[in-house]
Amino acid sequence: MIKAAIMGYGTVGSGVYEILDGNAEVVAGNAGQEIEVKYVLDLRDFPDHPHPEKFIKDFSIIENDPEITVVAEVMGGTGAAYEFTKRCLLAGKSVVTSNKALVAKHGAELIAIAKENNLNYEFEASVGGGIPIIRPMVQCLTANNMLAITGILNGTTNYILNRMIREGISFDACLKEAQALGYAEADPTADVEGHDACRKIAILSDLAYGKNVATELVETEGISKITLRDVDYAEQAGCVVKLLGRAVLNEDKTIYAFVAPHFVSKSSPLACVDGVYNAILTTGDMLGDAMFYGQGAGKLATASAVVADMIDCVIHSKNRRRLGWVDDGENIVRPLDSFASRWYVRLTGEDAAAKLSEAFPGAQLLALDGVTGEAACLTGELTTAEMQAKKQALGTVAGSMRLL
Amino acid sequence: MIKAAIMGYGTVGSGVYEILDGNAEVVAGNAGQEIEVKYVLDLRDFPDHPHPEKFIKDFSIIENDPEITVVAEVMGGTGAAYEFTKRCLLAGKSVVTSNKALVAKHGAELIAIAKENNLNYEFEASVGGGIPIIRPMVQCLTANNMLAITGILNGTTNYILNRMIREGISFDACLKEAQALGYAEADPTADVEGHDACRKIAILSDLAYGKNVATELVETEGISKITLRDVDYAEQAGCVVKLLGRAVLNEDKTIYAFVAPHFVSKSSPLACVDGVYNAILTTGDMLGDAMFYGQGAGKLATASAVVADMIDCVIHSKNRRRLGWVDDGENIVRPLDSFASRWYVRLTGEDAAAKLSEAFPGAQLLALDGVTGEAACLTGELTTAEMQAKKQALGTVAGSMRLL
Repeated sequence: MIKAAIMGYGTVGSGVYEILDGNAEVVAGNAGQEIEVKYVLDLRDFPDHPHPEKFIKDFSIIENDPEITVVAEVMGGTGAAYEFTKRCLLAGKSVVTSNKALVAKHGAELIAIAKENNLNYEFEASVGGGIPIIRPMVQCLTANNMLAITGILNGTTNYILNRMIREGISFDACLKEAQALGYAEADPTADVEGHDACRKIAILSDLAYGKNVATELVETEGISKITLRDVDYAEQAGCVVKLLGRAVLNEDKTIYAFVAPHFVSKSSPLACVDGVYNAILTTGDMLGDAMFYGQGAGKLATASAVVADMIDCVIHSKNRRRLGWVDDGENIVRPLDSFASRWYVRLTGEDAAAKLSEAFPGAQLLALDGVTGEAACLTGELTTAEMQAKKQALGTVAGSMRLL
Repeated sequence: MIKAAIMGYGTVGSGVYEILDGNAEVVAGNAGQEIEVKYVLDLRDFPDHPHPEKFIKDFSIIENDPEITVVAEVMGGTGAAYEFTKRCLLAGKSVVTSNKALVAKHGAELIAIAKENNLNYEFEASVGGGIPIIRPMVQCLTANNMLAITGILNGTTNYILNRMIREGISFDACLKEAQALGYAEADPTADVEGHDACRKIAILSDLAYGKNVATELVETEGISKITLRDVDYAEQAGCVVKLLGRAVLNEDKTIYAFVAPHFVSKSSPLACVDGVYNAILTTGDMLGDAMFYGQGAGKLATASAVVADMIDCVIHSKNRRRLGWVDDGENIVRPLDSFASRWYVRLTGEDAAAKLSEAFPGAQLLALDGVTGEAACLTGELTTAEMQAKKQALGTVAGSMRLL
């Protein structure tokens, strides 16, 4: 029997408890032995819990209990979670987590500490919630150079964009709706401005390319400027608007890594990913495209991945997982200036169509019935720097997005 | 340096060679050491190959060479492939394969032999070609009871159905086209009649439920009877026709396992899976739906999974993988008679609509512009046995499919 601890009894933490309790039989079958929660660390009281005696407020009880071999850190944040994770690893306990902020910021260091101590630090739940993506990428795509990773990594923004597309409701109204349904936080900045997706594409890039990809280097643009007009032009172009986290490998082994809204062709499997679902499309040089789809958030879905990692730690208690990347100071992220793609551009003004045709020779003009005083087009391939220069020259660009 | 052998230099075998050769650097990086192909076993001659000296015709050279630790069996079939796999395992070599027929038929035995000899027998490429599905299922969904597996498991039939849906071309014409493009074999029976999908859903069921699921017990129906009329009614019902392999868990831990064409609602992520692509949708009691999508066949895609398994065998050479199922004589497959679902039914005759309404009270009638002398409907939930009885009573049923 394995004795485990859960640090943080919020949404995911209570889900982890629920699965270890309710699915004890299948968990024991897969782990080869039972996993019992000995402690739950939380500063709050849970007097109505069936096992109030398991709740503790003092982390050192976990740290100093040699019986505890696996700890689930589901507190979130990069403060106490960082300190406790480190101390758990130094005290000989493997740690699993759903904490993307911590993995993105201190992953390389925590993986190195785990390695030194012949322990595991696993974080399947940190990207794509319950979707298996980290282990498949690390274990099943190993014959490939990873040419690209393209992900719908945030369910909140995907839900909002979906409602805008399907129902023609404005961004602000969709956001309020998402907040009312509990899909968006009271402060929606991390989701809406792309910071959450940024952490996730950084983690996927870390793993795929083996080097630390700092979130500060991942150019990030959210969806708050997307209008219903953009969504309509997308429809006319045979596309849907999606917020994508992308990593693209260059021949010199540097990468482009960024988060931005895109026009996604309806022929892409990513275009079908609706509502709060997430999907990660990987492009290997041998395999081609593979896509991993599922619930990117939610109590039991995320907890399902946390518990799977706990089971994996139990199975691999004597032989450490090869999983991770190094922070050797090398920066493999190349600025976006030279990254080329096709673009959607929307321009206001009575002579917009003529201006667009002049600025982007050969571009495909898009027109919406009854809409005047503006125009939009799909350009040929242009680098980000070229596009910036064009936009500056045009002056009144109301919107622009890359095509995928 | 690891010395490996490839048995069979057909499409997949030459792909495995190509990846180990062309992607040697990434393979060595992920395996922790280089993997060199020492032998290629094939009865044919390949005088133009850059390394003709590696080609052998006598299996015992591999069997008796202690340097060989990993063997890729990509011969196909259940004859020599079975014998050679067994002898490799008994001679202390781990074996990986893309051979679904062999895994479906003798998997339990070969896994047991591998286990006895502390070796690995891995077969990621046997289901879904290059798509990571077996390892994610075995390692990442371990906190879940697997409620259902629903797969588009055969690219040939998906291509044919897709062309019928998109272009309105008949089944026979699409099949000829698929043969011309190399997507279908000269003898297309295994694909078109569902036998290929049957083997794959049997393997997925083996893994998900831990017991041997014999292909003979998996009721299998192909797509050769699907007409353009069925495809049109599907469109009218907001569905697309897909050939699905399905496993559904019952409360008593028996399963339904079968292959049949279905009306798939366009709201399902499976409806978006086009062309020769495959996808497997898993439903866990905690995770909910997750989907794995990619190329289900093709030289390099399939070889990508074979090589990933070879790398895994190298990494796990001292600690056997927990992967497999047992053949203890227990049959967990329950006959389909009691499996309930909604149905599409098409009936010919001038009074078809009236007859359908009488036979299926409350059913939703489907009508196509300009089509007379027949009618179709979507029924409520009916078991397979109930449906059979209704069809027998109606007499002139031209087509029927379950809804998903």
